[in-house]
Amino acid sequence: MPRFEQTERTRIHRMPKRASYDVAVVEAILAEGLYCHVGFSVDGQPYVIPTIYARIEDHLYLHGSAASRMLGAIGERMPVCVTVTLLDGLVLARSGFHHSMNYRSVVVLGQATEVTDPDEKMAALKAIVDHVMVGRWEDAREPSAQELKATSVIRVPLEEVSAKIRTGPPVDDEDDYQLDCWAGEVPLRLVSQLPVADPQLRAGIALPAYAKNYKR
Amino acid sequence: MPRFEQTERTRIHRMPKRASYDVAVVEAILAEGLYCHVGFSVDGQPYVIPTIYARIEDHLYLHGSAASRMLGAIGERMPVCVTVTLLDGLVLARSGFHHSMNYRSVVVLGQATEVTDPDEKMAALKAIVDHVMVGRWEDAREPSAQELKATSVIRVPLEEVSAKIRTGPPVDDEDDYQLDCWAGEVPLRLVSQLPVADPQLRAGIALPAYAKNYKR
Repeated sequence: MPRFEQTERTRIHRMPKRASYDVAVVEAILAEGLYCHVGFSVDGQPYVIPTIYARIEDHLYLHGSAASRMLGAIGERMPVCVTVTLLDGLVLARSGFHHSMNYRSVVVLGQATEVTDPDEKMAALKAIVDHVMVGRWEDAREPSAQELKATSVIRVPLEEVSAKIRTGPPVDDEDDYQLDCWAGEVPLRLVSQLPVADPQLRAGIALPAYAKNYKR
Repeated sequence: MPRFEQTERTRIHRMPKRASYDVAVVEAILAEGLYCHVGFSVDGQPYVIPTIYARIEDHLYLHGSAASRMLGAIGERMPVCVTVTLLDGLVLARSGFHHSMNYRSVVVLGQATEVTDPDEKMAALKAIVDHVMVGRWEDAREPSAQELKATSVIRVPLEEVSAKIRTGPPVDDEDDYQLDCWAGEVPLRLVSQLPVADPQLRAGIALPAYAKNYKR
């Protein structure tokens, strides 16, 4: 199975059994995740901003205001960290100490560069819309040349990458299993509710299937 | 209404109408959020790690492996960014360009310091468990002196803080409202599923109410 090469910066020191460098594991988390938190530094101060992303082959693409702020602050090349987290559940142990979360996360370290080629930019924006909702790009109006110009897109290579995963029940100290305390997992899911039509929606436009039963 | 003072670093340049510096708005988002993404830099490389937090008065507390990694990497004082994001929905506009998300987020910039006082450390751990699940601290075994020693806790002051909020329907270009395209919001919620008991749970221990109907 193809794997990302471990580097000193992606080696997971805490709970190394939870680490994965398998490309397929990383790609599955990136596919299920909806948004990321991107980190960058300005004058020694880190900033962490939530934003949408998409993967095309071995790059992540980010766009819009996060990209603008980073680009404005740092210029055309900058070290960033893109983290995608899926929270799967609360792990209730018998001791406070062993409480945990079940989760799947990916951390991507690398240099972000601005995407200036209009075709690559358009492909990235299509990928971003499709990442959120497959089929939506076909239904919405495509970006105009002016909109394309007004949108910043950056690209981060998937080279220095790690995943971290916890699953399953709590792991308690041997002596604690006899305690009179409930233990287990409370699973958590991100679910969609009934869509709310724009009050200005024209009459006679049906709710598309991709919005009706939206799932990650 | 008490407000956080805007600084050059917390001033929101993009979509300033979405910004809020109201203490009550910030505190409500921090109370509803379950976990944060904390950003810190090592040798010019930013790292962004998901972790649990709790607020006690005008400080955020983080613990465990994220704190360890940061403390190990940087020492006792370090500039960090703590970001809490609540995703409320997908905003489907008639143009790709105006697609958006409804969300509420808080960004805290500041210096993290290690908490060494045992009483403050214990109070922080209690607050962290209670932040995830009110009532759980009473049921679980309290940390031993050794566990307390093995746990890193850091504190970040709530001084340089901003919130950003988007709500409501899409905002499209005037010409696009006539397009034959559904538009509106797909609301998203983090919901709990049926709790899963630890396979090693002793017989006769009932599921506590706080785990049965878990909600943020």
